[in-house]
Amino acid sequence: MTFMKKIKKAWDIKNSLVCVGLDPDLKKLPPCLKGEKFPIFEFNKAIIDATSEAACCYKPQFAYYAGYGAENELKMTIAYMSEKYPEIPVILDSKRGDIGSTAEMYAKESFDIYGADAVTVNPYMGTDTLKPFLDRKEKGTVILCRTSNPSSCEIQELKHDGLEIYKHVANYAMTKWNYNENLMLVVGATFPEELGAIRKICGTIPFLVPGVGAQGGDVRKVLENGKTPDGRGLVINSSRGIIYASNGNDFAAAAGKATRELRDEINKYR
Amino acid sequence: MTFMKKIKKAWDIKNSLVCVGLDPDLKKLPPCLKGEKFPIFEFNKAIIDATSEAACCYKPQFAYYAGYGAENELKMTIAYMSEKYPEIPVILDSKRGDIGSTAEMYAKESFDIYGADAVTVNPYMGTDTLKPFLDRKEKGTVILCRTSNPSSCEIQELKHDGLEIYKHVANYAMTKWNYNENLMLVVGATFPEELGAIRKICGTIPFLVPGVGAQGGDVRKVLENGKTPDGRGLVINSSRGIIYASNGNDFAAAAGKATRELRDEINKYR
Repeated sequence: MTFMKKIKKAWDIKNSLVCVGLDPDLKKLPPCLKGEKFPIFEFNKAIIDATSEAACCYKPQFAYYAGYGAENELKMTIAYMSEKYPEIPVILDSKRGDIGSTAEMYAKESFDIYGADAVTVNPYMGTDTLKPFLDRKEKGTVILCRTSNPSSCEIQELKHDGLEIYKHVANYAMTKWNYNENLMLVVGATFPEELGAIRKICGTIPFLVPGVGAQGGDVRKVLENGKTPDGRGLVINSSRGIIYASNGNDFAAAAGKATRELRDEINKYR
Repeated sequence: MTFMKKIKKAWDIKNSLVCVGLDPDLKKLPPCLKGEKFPIFEFNKAIIDATSEAACCYKPQFAYYAGYGAENELKMTIAYMSEKYPEIPVILDSKRGDIGSTAEMYAKESFDIYGADAVTVNPYMGTDTLKPFLDRKEKGTVILCRTSNPSSCEIQELKHDGLEIYKHVANYAMTKWNYNENLMLVVGATFPEELGAIRKICGTIPFLVPGVGAQGGDVRKVLENGKTPDGRGLVINSSRGIIYASNGNDFAAAAGKATRELRDEINKYR
């Protein structure tokens, strides 16, 4: 099943728009995992089992594995998800972007080596750097548009012909990049009005929305501005708010509870 | 020694502005390496030994290792260079970029896990995503400004207040990001006039210049537009033109010859 079909189906069968961000920080893992051979994998596995009931997507953040030299545990995590929860898609959040021939190698990394269903990419270098990802019809390409961090305005809010750069990215997405209908955009929850403006440009293209929870995004505003008419169209990520809901040995149960609560909070406004 | 001191010293002791791009494609390796346990590493080692006389820098392209699941051979390559040629800096070309807490993990990946002297990063998300790299005073941060690929115009040439986005990036570099004097900019050889405009904005900030050779950039124009008054200021990368100068078993000798020829061609215009 293609990534796009999978995410749409997951919205429905899980009745959830929640994406669980798997950003495991070794310094924050609960005491009971300290002696494990693969502590990150064991942590992820417990989080996944406890949250799968209420999650439509998982998003491992590549840097948290690479920064510890734990790429093998990232692979193990994605393999575990694909095997046990094949109905839930996995977006590898690695924000890749490079010239054509190199981007092909990154597409291989994301889809063939790690086995992700989709990958996040950076649009700064333009179409030829996105094409090797977009050409993989069955996979998803999640393009940065308006990111959730404070300095995102420095480039993304500059205006050309009266339109902010992030809106040009949204226009390219609609007119040029979605030829295989396998594209999503990253639009931060911290800028709900911009989210609304991008929704107006982009029809029903799904958005990956980081920034609720620790970064301060407001769930009601995200839904009001970002949902599609059918009450879907959003993959709303929470990382720290879910995976560190408790720092004790009850971390998995707490993560499950936080996921269900976020799902319910979101569903109030769908 | 800091990255910036190292690159300046390497320009002088090697009398060269040539950077050798290590983008090893398994499909293109010479026949004599087919049976090797670590073919990429063996290829790189031979290339490095044959080119070190005339190279001021090496630039492994992360994607070519990650796409083959050969990150270990990337580590082995950088370790080999640091040990045998400590006077030549290594720029890891991985074009990272993510929100602050995540960017810290990418800085660890680049500098602590792989041991690179510098890393390429993408500016689309702004200052807080660059800071974890820039804060590492002894290391180099090489920020994408005007890239060499055909579609780079789509975002980089949009104009805000009469200035192209890439010039805004150049301005940020000068006024905001170079607080540790450890910054370089990526400026493609395929746009020599833009290279000149960026040089006017950026004083003596060094540029990493991809795009000569296979991508068609003209050496004379690069030097005329990009060099600093002392005939330095540029790290001019060639990947395919050097490492695949021959596809036979004489690949290393051919790479050495191609590097010396490029060095001499460049030095004509310094």
